[in-house]
Amino acid sequence: MNLHGLSLILGQTTRPGGRTFHAVDARIGGALAEVFHEASSDDARAAGDAAASACADYAALPAERRALFLERIATEIEALGDSLLDRCQAETGLPLARLQGERARTCGQLRLFAGLVREGSWVDARIDPALPERTPLPRPDLRRMLVPLGPVVVFGSSNFPFAFSVAGGDTASALAAGCPVIVKAHRSHPGTSERVATAVLRAVAACEVPAGVFSLLHGGGATIGVELVKHPATAAVGFTGSHAAGRALCDAAAARPCPIPVFAEMSSLNPLVILPGALRSRPVAIAQGLCASFTLGVGQFCTKPGLVFTLAGAGLEEFTRQLGESVRACSAAPMLSPSIRTEFLKHRAEVSGVPGVRLLASAPAPERPTDGEPSVVTTTAETFLINPRLATEVFGPFTVVVVAQSFADLRRCLETLDGQLTATLQADPADNASARALLPLLTRRAGRVVMNGFPTGVEVCPAMQHGGPHPATSDARFTSVGTAAILRFARPVCFQNLAPELLPPELQDQNPRGLMRLIDGTPTREPLQGPRR
Amino acid sequence: MNLHGLSLILGQTTRPGGRTFHAVDARIGGALAEVFHEASSDDARAAGDAAASACADYAALPAERRALFLERIATEIEALGDSLLDRCQAETGLPLARLQGERARTCGQLRLFAGLVREGSWVDARIDPALPERTPLPRPDLRRMLVPLGPVVVFGSSNFPFAFSVAGGDTASALAAGCPVIVKAHRSHPGTSERVATAVLRAVAACEVPAGVFSLLHGGGATIGVELVKHPATAAVGFTGSHAAGRALCDAAAARPCPIPVFAEMSSLNPLVILPGALRSRPVAIAQGLCASFTLGVGQFCTKPGLVFTLAGAGLEEFTRQLGESVRACSAAPMLSPSIRTEFLKHRAEVSGVPGVRLLASAPAPERPTDGEPSVVTTTAETFLINPRLATEVFGPFTVVVVAQSFADLRRCLETLDGQLTATLQADPADNASARALLPLLTRRAGRVVMNGFPTGVEVCPAMQHGGPHPATSDARFTSVGTAAILRFARPVCFQNLAPELLPPELQDQNPRGLMRLIDGTPTREPLQGPRR
Repeated sequence: MNLHGLSLILGQTTRPGGRTFHAVDARIGGALAEVFHEASSDDARAAGDAAASACADYAALPAERRALFLERIATEIEALGDSLLDRCQAETGLPLARLQGERARTCGQLRLFAGLVREGSWVDARIDPALPERTPLPRPDLRRMLVPLGPVVVFGSSNFPFAFSVAGGDTASALAAGCPVIVKAHRSHPGTSERVATAVLRAVAACEVPAGVFSLLHGGGATIGVELVKHPATAAVGFTGSHAAGRALCDAAAARPCPIPVFAEMSSLNPLVILPGALRSRPVAIAQGLCASFTLGVGQFCTKPGLVFTLAGAGLEEFTRQLGESVRACSAAPMLSPSIRTEFLKHRAEVSGVPGVRLLASAPAPERPTDGEPSVVTTTAETFLINPRLATEVFGPFTVVVVAQSFADLRRCLETLDGQLTATLQADPADNASARALLPLLTRRAGRVVMNGFPTGVEVCPAMQHGGPHPATSDARFTSVGTAAILRFARPVCFQNLAPELLPPELQDQNPRGLMRLIDGTPTREPLQGPRR
Repeated sequence: MNLHGLSLILGQTTRPGGRTFHAVDARIGGALAEVFHEASSDDARAAGDAAASACADYAALPAERRALFLERIATEIEALGDSLLDRCQAETGLPLARLQGERARTCGQLRLFAGLVREGSWVDARIDPALPERTPLPRPDLRRMLVPLGPVVVFGSSNFPFAFSVAGGDTASALAAGCPVIVKAHRSHPGTSERVATAVLRAVAACEVPAGVFSLLHGGGATIGVELVKHPATAAVGFTGSHAAGRALCDAAAARPCPIPVFAEMSSLNPLVILPGALRSRPVAIAQGLCASFTLGVGQFCTKPGLVFTLAGAGLEEFTRQLGESVRACSAAPMLSPSIRTEFLKHRAEVSGVPGVRLLASAPAPERPTDGEPSVVTTTAETFLINPRLATEVFGPFTVVVVAQSFADLRRCLETLDGQLTATLQADPADNASARALLPLLTRRAGRVVMNGFPTGVEVCPAMQHGGPHPATSDARFTSVGTAAILRFARPVCFQNLAPELLPPELQDQNPRGLMRLIDGTPTREPLQGPRR
């Protein structure tokens, strides 16, 4: 399959024109052959208009049709076969096994949302039946459920070319909610994006959903993204990336005549705290686990543990020795893109250059100019407390170990931290008093609190929360991973005294879909009994 | 009980100083005796700091303690007795029966949220137990629940001196969620606000909740409000008022270094559509109901039907005749404040002055300079479509009847409308085809769709949705009325592999609180079975 290098709107390629770019082979640094055309302002407008035109018809599709569409997207992605993985390996430098796993996760997510939509209880149906005899005033019949918010603009991320890109979690949850999606492809893997978009469009055609339900735009920089956010039809935004880019989109969304919600996942240090009991009893295992976690995917995970806090005392020496040994045994590997590598080197140098910070260990320097090598630095609580630069993200295989002399100092360090996606406690039963003292503090700062594990690896399931207080995300009340991600793109509507024959199936007395519903405040799958009003 | 006219922070009155103001007797227009002191910037900072200091301890209170606190607030408000109602009558001009009803609703809301917190399932507990044998990767134990967001700034409204003011729906839902509250009292009823605040503080003392959990600030204009929104500890904002003021708060919140969510309920026309069958069969009843609804509370409800659409044809003449008769039979009544009356007269004149708009009927002109008299104007779809001024809110006893010549014209009018709190359909079974055609259109624009009723009167219950697309509110995904209002002020946290002895009761295996929880995606009140991981 050849790449055409063009944006896709209403199932058609856009006209070439304007600026062009090439993808870079992340493994060797050279430009790949194909030319990609940046979308124009006209394209952004056309994509928004297409989404607007599809909105009502797509929202009106029965749940089963929407579920089949999501499943078909998964099947079509799988049908792309190895050519998708080959292209993605070139564009991201990520190893084959990782990409196979990520593709499986991506298709799994689509099927998970299909199941959620098919089962249907996610619409949070609530019925408070009429109380015609109530005094002083009767109560009307009130029935409430979630409906789609409208077109969603999704920004593909650099570090998850499948799971948080064209048909990733944001797209899957928005389509599941009943919202058309416009994807702004990440510039670092445009060929991968085009292939996946083609799979989505095959599903659109096969399932006969409105053609405006999905568009893909290529673009460089923030311009085209901001234009999409400003399109009057856009109802919400999903974004995964840097704090600066995320904030720019939030600001653009807030400045619209009609502001819209943005769920931006932006930046996280993912602090990991090692309490004395755990340090004493498991120094080697924790060091090995930490090294594996902060170097996973060449350190390019939003959940990478980038800050480690521990206390001077028994086990510290062994922990430090093992951490150094593990890091030195690592190999450099290709980073996602030359610009990410440039940023990595710059930020690593800034943090490493803070007076009082010293290198603990580094893997051998890379041979290829595209690679990043793992390294770890260490410092004291005093140094950490007076250098806010140490509490900012370095995206790549790098972490900072802060050694405090007292629990009070450790606590003070944690209290300075901003919002995080995750916070991790390594704690033995002997540490329970300290763990109990720190848990509220970590819970206030993080969306997920991990105990005796490592934060990388985000399960896609109902109980997941991938989101946290600012700047980790722009709205801690939502998640971008797991079934609850759908709630970002839906809103409740209450129907008062609607004639039974006009009610959607989810709110009908007989509960034809067998949903779990809240009737008079009590959850039940039973039909509504008795005379209706 | 004398009024001291001061703000209240940490249970203490603030020091007088700065600018002062008097409340106005809305019934006669004269200033009331007591002097009120505007809060200073120092007061705003102190209130934010107090809330921050109370945050962790209040969040950690067992649910039962929080429920008792809410119930005690209701009891203390009731214990204020008639003096509260007397003061409120003077400050708002609202009749006694209305204020008695509103006080009952307010106390009912507090008790409803107490019940919600006591039952506890609102925290949406979700457990995905560990799958240690899963391949290729085991699943960790994941448990998620809602936790308080942090201090909430609440802006009292002018039109609900109890139900959306000091201890109204925003405060009740924020306190129920576990968040401290800082209330900025509405300037038009400072004495009422002080009295209710005193009741809240009595409950704070009696229930031994942290003193920083509640503050009341008096202030004029937006300054003190924006300062509260900008306080670093503020985590969310609840507001009911004008579009301009709401937008200013949204903008201030979005411009913070760490943006925070604002739920602002701002402006709504609440379109009411009368379809031909209903117009033919019930012209008199609809006219009478419409008149009662748009004049209720002197037209000062956010759900007042301010735009009526119907079709030329059988019944129109009778409807028009009856509507005119009903309106002429109304009396003028005191509006909430002189400034609201001034705005009412100005906006009414602007709309009435649009060429093609003619007066249908008006109640007799008021004798007192504080009163507003109901009136209704009428126009054509053509005039409506070319005059956007006709689709903006006139807050007061005034409505616009638009008569279309065809269903297509009527539909075109509705398609121009912005987001609304409510949309109403008057439709007989004979109108079902038209109703079916209009329902998706109205659902896209409104938070609540009413059939064969009137939008005023907002039930406080689980199925209520009081919120809608912009500009009705700033975030259509939430409601400010009903139990779901609590979701504005909470966020999920996921605990991964947390030691059983560290888990909060809501997430423990044995489900000690008997909550409805989602286990492996299935709702159940059963304890978690089997070995834990």
